[in-house]
Amino acid sequence: MMTDAYAIGIDLGGTQVRAGLVDWSGKLIARESMLTDRMGGPQAVVEQIGLLVDKIIVTKPECMIAGIGVSAPGPLDAVTGHILEIATLKGWENTPIVEMLEARLGQNVAIENDGLAAALGEWRYGAGKGLTHFVYVTVSTGIGGGVVADGRLLRGRRGMACHVGHMSIDPNGPRCGCGNPGCWEAIASGTALARRAQVAMMGDPASTLHSGPQPIDAGAIFAAARHGDGTALKLVNEEARWLGIGLVNLLHRYSPEKIVLGGGLSQGLDLMRAGIEAEIAAHAMVPFRTVSVVSAGLGGDSGIIGAASLFQFSDRI
Amino acid sequence: MMTDAYAIGIDLGGTQVRAGLVDWSGKLIARESMLTDRMGGPQAVVEQIGLLVDKIIVTKPECMIAGIGVSAPGPLDAVTGHILEIATLKGWENTPIVEMLEARLGQNVAIENDGLAAALGEWRYGAGKGLTHFVYVTVSTGIGGGVVADGRLLRGRRGMACHVGHMSIDPNGPRCGCGNPGCWEAIASGTALARRAQVAMMGDPASTLHSGPQPIDAGAIFAAARHGDGTALKLVNEEARWLGIGLVNLLHRYSPEKIVLGGGLSQGLDLMRAGIEAEIAAHAMVPFRTVSVVSAGLGGDSGIIGAASLFQFSDRI
Repeated sequence: MMTDAYAIGIDLGGTQVRAGLVDWSGKLIARESMLTDRMGGPQAVVEQIGLLVDKIIVTKPECMIAGIGVSAPGPLDAVTGHILEIATLKGWENTPIVEMLEARLGQNVAIENDGLAAALGEWRYGAGKGLTHFVYVTVSTGIGGGVVADGRLLRGRRGMACHVGHMSIDPNGPRCGCGNPGCWEAIASGTALARRAQVAMMGDPASTLHSGPQPIDAGAIFAAARHGDGTALKLVNEEARWLGIGLVNLLHRYSPEKIVLGGGLSQGLDLMRAGIEAEIAAHAMVPFRTVSVVSAGLGGDSGIIGAASLFQFSDRI
Repeated sequence: MMTDAYAIGIDLGGTQVRAGLVDWSGKLIARESMLTDRMGGPQAVVEQIGLLVDKIIVTKPECMIAGIGVSAPGPLDAVTGHILEIATLKGWENTPIVEMLEARLGQNVAIENDGLAAALGEWRYGAGKGLTHFVYVTVSTGIGGGVVADGRLLRGRRGMACHVGHMSIDPNGPRCGCGNPGCWEAIASGTALARRAQVAMMGDPASTLHSGPQPIDAGAIFAAARHGDGTALKLVNEEARWLGIGLVNLLHRYSPEKIVLGGGLSQGLDLMRAGIEAEIAAHAMVPFRTVSVVSAGLGGDSGIIGAASLFQFSDRI
């Protein structure tokens, strides 16, 4: 028996492909995942997505599916449905992913850059709900994000706006995966934090960071900082400063009512909040200083839920 | 006898206050200006604007005025009509400028940040005409700008979005007037270029820059470069690189179809184009590299015409 309509959201990442069945209230009611076939190219991953969707549909045969929204790394062309390239996966240049998925799935498919999809999810169902202007930033392996301004998701030409991680904030900074020197992503992502931690640990043989997982990751750095490890606290404060520098740029750029922070590093927002707020208080122009930074409301599911929501609202451009 | 409706645009700057009568095709058909009363505060400047408007109305009594749009330095709150502060003028904190001007002029008044107003002018009547996504950047004493994305001017909370000059691109760079270290404005504005020129001239006593106006300005640097002066050419190339670094950030941020460059430094775009394009080709992500940089179509009048256009279109938020 058919019930209310649902949509499926796919989160295609460099590590995992995840699929979720989302109801009209934005609730994730079934999920499936597998490790991304990094070497198989688009055809193999399309088949993976197909299997995940099949699994979900088999367990919920009573659900009518309005469509399948895909969140994927960019740059991608959301208008024509092509992935232009994926830095972390080989062989994806100019892939007509929407056409391929529609052929495999027999369903309507739409694609959105992962930062924008997660921003949509947070706006419609999470920490950005009810806001007219907000900036979503996800900090994990890289830095991505999306922006709602004047009550609409900012998409830009080919839906490629808001690559917020790829702004150079230091001309002498490390080269980013995108080729640009000193991108915010290259300096303030979880990857960059872990790299700084490895250097700092060499200078502090007594640090509890040595007893964490090796190579060290952001979660272990936050854990050590919570236990008062001096080197970890210094790393966290430095990270907060770099995040703050980029957030000031975003405040001046988009004038949001709120900044929503997602991704793995948002788990340490409590530790970094004072440092981030100090950076904003010191360097944002006065009328921008009152904007607060809050954690994502949907955790790691912002992307899946946002991608599904492409079929739950009619305001796509 | 009444004819078609017109609107008046005001461009309130740190040096001049300018007023223009603009017809429904965006043509400036009368103009007046005077030096800004920098010390008199808001009341004196409101009176200056009143005198300029009176002069225009007296010479064109047959014109029906739909309203008066004001372009002013920010940050300002375009929604409530308050100027929050003006870095170059004293005593403007939280000035209810719209209310004051409506009382003085007996006309409907609206206010817009100067970068946004000029972007509106270029979008509706200039080099951005017909585009759905474009970025306008004005480089002169400072750097400002505005963005059209998805067919609408990006305004943000309180209409304060798109302070494009105030993004830090170098944490060790010179402190900006806004207080932020290494803002694009502090590094790549005409003021910053002139400062670098003064240093470079000390190292090159034979440069023709010494025979230009002192203190040197961007126009004289471009002129010397056109005559093959080596130091001037080096300065121009360095300026192009800094402009390019900021423009790459804006490409990734807004995904425009075109970048429109205005302000005094756009007079040297022919000299800087190769350097700017080289920076974009080297550091923008591939799908962003084809975006061209063109000169403003309305020259120094983008702001007046854009401000007037606030009363010529009904799409204000």
